[in-house]
Amino acid sequence: MNLSKKILEIPHSPIRRFYVYSNEAEKNGKKVYQLNIGQPDIKTPEVFFEAIKKYDKEVLDYAPSQGIPVMIDAIKKYYARYGMDYKDDQILITNGGSEAIMFTLTAILDPGDEVIVVEPIYSNYATFITAADGKMVPITTVAEDGYHYAKKELIAKAITPRTKAMIVTSPGNPTGNVLTKAEMRMICDLAAEHGFFIIADEVYREFVYDGREMASMGEFEDAGQHVIIIDSVSKRFSACGARVGCIVTRNAELYSNILKLCQGRLSSPTLDQVGAAALYDLDPSYFDEVKKEYEHRRDVVCEELAKIPGIVCEKPAGAFYITVKLPVEDAEDFLIWLLTEFDDNGETVMYAPAEGFYVTPGLGKNEMRIAYVLKEKDLRRSAELIRLGIERYNGR
Amino acid sequence: MNLSKKILEIPHSPIRRFYVYSNEAEKNGKKVYQLNIGQPDIKTPEVFFEAIKKYDKEVLDYAPSQGIPVMIDAIKKYYARYGMDYKDDQILITNGGSEAIMFTLTAILDPGDEVIVVEPIYSNYATFITAADGKMVPITTVAEDGYHYAKKELIAKAITPRTKAMIVTSPGNPTGNVLTKAEMRMICDLAAEHGFFIIADEVYREFVYDGREMASMGEFEDAGQHVIIIDSVSKRFSACGARVGCIVTRNAELYSNILKLCQGRLSSPTLDQVGAAALYDLDPSYFDEVKKEYEHRRDVVCEELAKIPGIVCEKPAGAFYITVKLPVEDAEDFLIWLLTEFDDNGETVMYAPAEGFYVTPGLGKNEMRIAYVLKEKDLRRSAELIRLGIERYNGR
Repeated sequence: MNLSKKILEIPHSPIRRFYVYSNEAEKNGKKVYQLNIGQPDIKTPEVFFEAIKKYDKEVLDYAPSQGIPVMIDAIKKYYARYGMDYKDDQILITNGGSEAIMFTLTAILDPGDEVIVVEPIYSNYATFITAADGKMVPITTVAEDGYHYAKKELIAKAITPRTKAMIVTSPGNPTGNVLTKAEMRMICDLAAEHGFFIIADEVYREFVYDGREMASMGEFEDAGQHVIIIDSVSKRFSACGARVGCIVTRNAELYSNILKLCQGRLSSPTLDQVGAAALYDLDPSYFDEVKKEYEHRRDVVCEELAKIPGIVCEKPAGAFYITVKLPVEDAEDFLIWLLTEFDDNGETVMYAPAEGFYVTPGLGKNEMRIAYVLKEKDLRRSAELIRLGIERYNGR
Repeated sequence: MNLSKKILEIPHSPIRRFYVYSNEAEKNGKKVYQLNIGQPDIKTPEVFFEAIKKYDKEVLDYAPSQGIPVMIDAIKKYYARYGMDYKDDQILITNGGSEAIMFTLTAILDPGDEVIVVEPIYSNYATFITAADGKMVPITTVAEDGYHYAKKELIAKAITPRTKAMIVTSPGNPTGNVLTKAEMRMICDLAAEHGFFIIADEVYREFVYDGREMASMGEFEDAGQHVIIIDSVSKRFSACGARVGCIVTRNAELYSNILKLCQGRLSSPTLDQVGAAALYDLDPSYFDEVKKEYEHRRDVVCEELAKIPGIVCEKPAGAFYITVKLPVEDAEDFLIWLLTEFDDNGETVMYAPAEGFYVTPGLGKNEMRIAYVLKEKDLRRSAELIRLGIERYNGR
């Protein structure tokens, strides 16, 4: 019995398949600094756990398919704080941002429909575009230009009559790219002109640095029929294990049709929604502190990486990722070498080779992505280990 | 911008769309007995909440995509108790049984591939088969025969060269049909002969009555490449809001490919898995008590329904649903009438019209499904209200 063509086309996670090497290294007593996944070490706010502990219903029952009222209300108020006016029936609570993306793609893609993506991309987009029988059309960006893509000519070139949507991730994973309001406006205008959806993945919304203004595709009310916002508590509140995300859209037909999928899977986790709603009651100063911490980490990691001769590294504007070009031929081979052959005082380091984040075959071979989710001291040491590793690897 | 053809094809939930009438009735002060959804009133065992309260990690992080080790271990031991030997890498923890079904269908269906289903069906199968671009081929069953379908000739007639899978739900929703071991064996043999997958939805596994033997498709090791078990804590432990299900299969290629989708959505809820694992530590006598309660409720509801002249009602063998043929022309019209025009001492009742559970247009018009998830007294009163309602409705 054959499996589906689409599932066979989907590659295994480009991040997780190196665990076999890191697990082996750790078994042999090496310490491995893990810069490879976006799992923050910031404490999940206590209010999350407190709200769950206070839950006192005897039966843990299904939540409404669209989300529990208190959670929908929390999202509504959160957007209102930033001047975006959404109503209850424009918000669908999902199993993390992942399900929000998956359901959105299922609701809009017919076989062969095209989705414009920016490469390097968040690789799980590829999984769900393929699973929904869609086709990716990549806009290629380069390290030398800080992975910038928000240029009208560049995007226009990717648009065809089959373009159904463009995924815009700002702040971005894996590059930390952040769009300005003017750039967002330009993309909204293109969407209106050519008739496609904007899937705006804004789960890192608060994490913009150097005094940049926080912006959202939700601010352009005139583009409301085009814009689908993907959001989540995972990164915002360091609550990745809670699996509470949402879809926010002014497009009533889209809302009503995605609701069918929400009803099909019955509900999102009840307790996690109770906890997540409490997170949104935190004072907004919470974000200032977390942002300051990440901004500092970004500066630290850029400072250390700059010491590596031949590296191409532009300071990213947001999120907590940085993608750089390394002075090696093959970042995957180098990673495996780091995990299997290298150590400095019993320590080594793990990152995500960026080749898996490119749609176009052959690109990104000498690039890596780092998630700066560790404390300053560990980040400095990790970057040092990469530097020492490169010296020794290239000197073999 | 058009939405996808598949999403437009999916109907809205046949259960949930009557809430507008029941909400209105409740607003007008009527008491509405809700027999329409399978939300049990049985207390969720305390151990679930206790385990979650004991969680003391500071960061609520992602669970491994395949599930947390203690949860996988719990499933393994649960199956071992019933003589089924599964290994860690044959179990994938999912966001409820719903995601298990969704991922399985995505992994096996190419556009136009056929899935044999039994009608009346659990309507969310239809949602996810359509979302995966598959085509349903229904085996039609009838009330007069207790909705029985496990006959070789009947199933063989539905098999074509495009048959990719058959969904077998035992104990069944919405009919309470239960397969014997011999019937399961027969279906395994057909799957082997014609080369299709068996999606065995066994979330009601423990709920089999009148001394019937509990059976699972997992017992037929020789059919291991064909069998995909869908399981969940929702009904087993009255923990519907926990969203912890799983896929259990001996097919390594299938496991490895569904894992790609699990990695794409990162993880299932961490805390709910911690709680769910504790549920599986309960003494098996827990099931005996719950089963006795449901068996009694079934007897009660059948006894009361039998008082309705002209009803066609076979005692179901398992689960907590019963589908019956009513002496009315249109069960949907009758339901709306019950909610809008009828009351007896300020009370009325809500069920699920069964037409939405049929794939073949026009079938099930005078059938209803009841979930007997209320206490004895309420069940008797609910059935009485249906009887009184029919008298008055047909005498208008």
